[in-house]
Amino acid sequence: MTNDLSRLSINQETIKQWSLPELAEGCVKAGIDKVGLWRAPVQEYGVERTAQLLADSGLSVTSLCRGGFLTDLDPAGRSRALDDNRAALDEAAGLSTDTLVLVSGGLPAGDKDLYGARERIADALGELAPYAAERGVRLAIEPLHPMFASDRCVVSTLSQALDLAERFPADQVGVVVDTYHLWWDDQAPAQIARAGAAGRIHSFQLADWITPLPAGVLVGRGQLGSGCVDFRTFRAAVEATGFDGPIEVEIFNEDLWARDGSEVLAEVAARYLEHAC
Amino acid sequence: MTNDLSRLSINQETIKQWSLPELAEGCVKAGIDKVGLWRAPVQEYGVERTAQLLADSGLSVTSLCRGGFLTDLDPAGRSRALDDNRAALDEAAGLSTDTLVLVSGGLPAGDKDLYGARERIADALGELAPYAAERGVRLAIEPLHPMFASDRCVVSTLSQALDLAERFPADQVGVVVDTYHLWWDDQAPAQIARAGAAGRIHSFQLADWITPLPAGVLVGRGQLGSGCVDFRTFRAAVEATGFDGPIEVEIFNEDLWARDGSEVLAEVAARYLEHAC
Repeated sequence: MTNDLSRLSINQETIKQWSLPELAEGCVKAGIDKVGLWRAPVQEYGVERTAQLLADSGLSVTSLCRGGFLTDLDPAGRSRALDDNRAALDEAAGLSTDTLVLVSGGLPAGDKDLYGARERIADALGELAPYAAERGVRLAIEPLHPMFASDRCVVSTLSQALDLAERFPADQVGVVVDTYHLWWDDQAPAQIARAGAAGRIHSFQLADWITPLPAGVLVGRGQLGSGCVDFRTFRAAVEATGFDGPIEVEIFNEDLWARDGSEVLAEVAARYLEHAC
Repeated sequence: MTNDLSRLSINQETIKQWSLPELAEGCVKAGIDKVGLWRAPVQEYGVERTAQLLADSGLSVTSLCRGGFLTDLDPAGRSRALDDNRAALDEAAGLSTDTLVLVSGGLPAGDKDLYGARERIADALGELAPYAAERGVRLAIEPLHPMFASDRCVVSTLSQALDLAERFPADQVGVVVDTYHLWWDDQAPAQIARAGAAGRIHSFQLADWITPLPAGVLVGRGQLGSGCVDFRTFRAAVEATGFDGPIEVEIFNEDLWARDGSEVLAEVAARYLEHAC
């Protein structure tokens, strides 16, 4: 493991109080040359303008969040979701990132069939994978913590994500290994090995697990080292497969968002070196 | 499946606005002859007095909640936990219930080792199982949803619970199958079969999964039929193993607690018949 910042990528949501120019300037000052981006702020700033800003700053984009939400039962809703994912792939290509993160979608209202929902995701991937491949972008299925299974993502484990991804070529569909979502799972080490052996770890993301969880549980992630995730062991498992890609820190936390962005970035870098290197 | 209330047990926490006498009276009026109890209200009312009240009402106790919290690293804390579990077993025997539910405990402060914590649970079970057996009480390990893994229960799946239970005789240590905690897990059906084949399903509990989750996530359970749990499929899987024991409804929900107890009980019974029979 390297003990420098050369592998570190800052997901912009971690410091969402910053505009894109502030993010670019802050990362350059801190000696960090990679960022993960989200569609909404990029669309607001403009895709081409964002690409130019990052190129001018010497920054590369490790992932774009997010596509997905592919579980709709209604044909019109499903068609809209596919259109939106094609647009996300175009945006990813415009930013020269090779990875679009997919949050697959939850159960439609009144539906109780997790298996059926995952099959609809597989069908949608079949439509999207060739489109992604033409643009040089990989679809990265992100398993989300089981507490999101009903309303956000019916893919709750790395095993389920790989069962979906393995129906497609590894350079088209892979997975996200995010410590926040997987830390509790005793099957995660074996599934990381499975993913890495097939070249399907398309993104590796870090956030810590802290409690109590806030209402809605979405923005309860912890700064690295503030919770109970063993980052070094996770990183060792991922790197044992040969993975040497970016390590992206993506933390949703109201307290971090209320602070000075430069201070948060410095803390993330220091915690990364202390806990993940 | 029977379509009557003969299998239904009301966990008192579902209607915690009721005193024990109110619970007994309400259940008798509703034609329900089984309850699940919690230690704190029983201690407050008195164990012997509770036992007498229930005997006079013709009610049996399907489970007592809860023992557990067996993950302490500190020897003094561990010793206190074992003493407390022995007291819980005495209370269970005093109530003539055959099942003490165990919420195993979370990670000690600063600790990140889920595997080690589960091994400490196994050690504690080794000390408690003979004591339980002498009193005719079974220890039922309850896997809790992974969102509780750090602060409440490092046993997150039925598979992990069975890995622990199987080190002991089935009539001493088994598991709780609670739909709220297990609904998301695609391994649950196979693990229910594993548990049932060994006679280790010591308790079967129902609650629905609803969102958004409240802060702290503890009291966000849904009334049967209000969420996305497929109770009939769960019950069929449990009964396919030969299980014909009580079906206990245990819902922690602020809205239910704010309502008239008789109304809540009637609704639970109606929802049970509609969704789980």
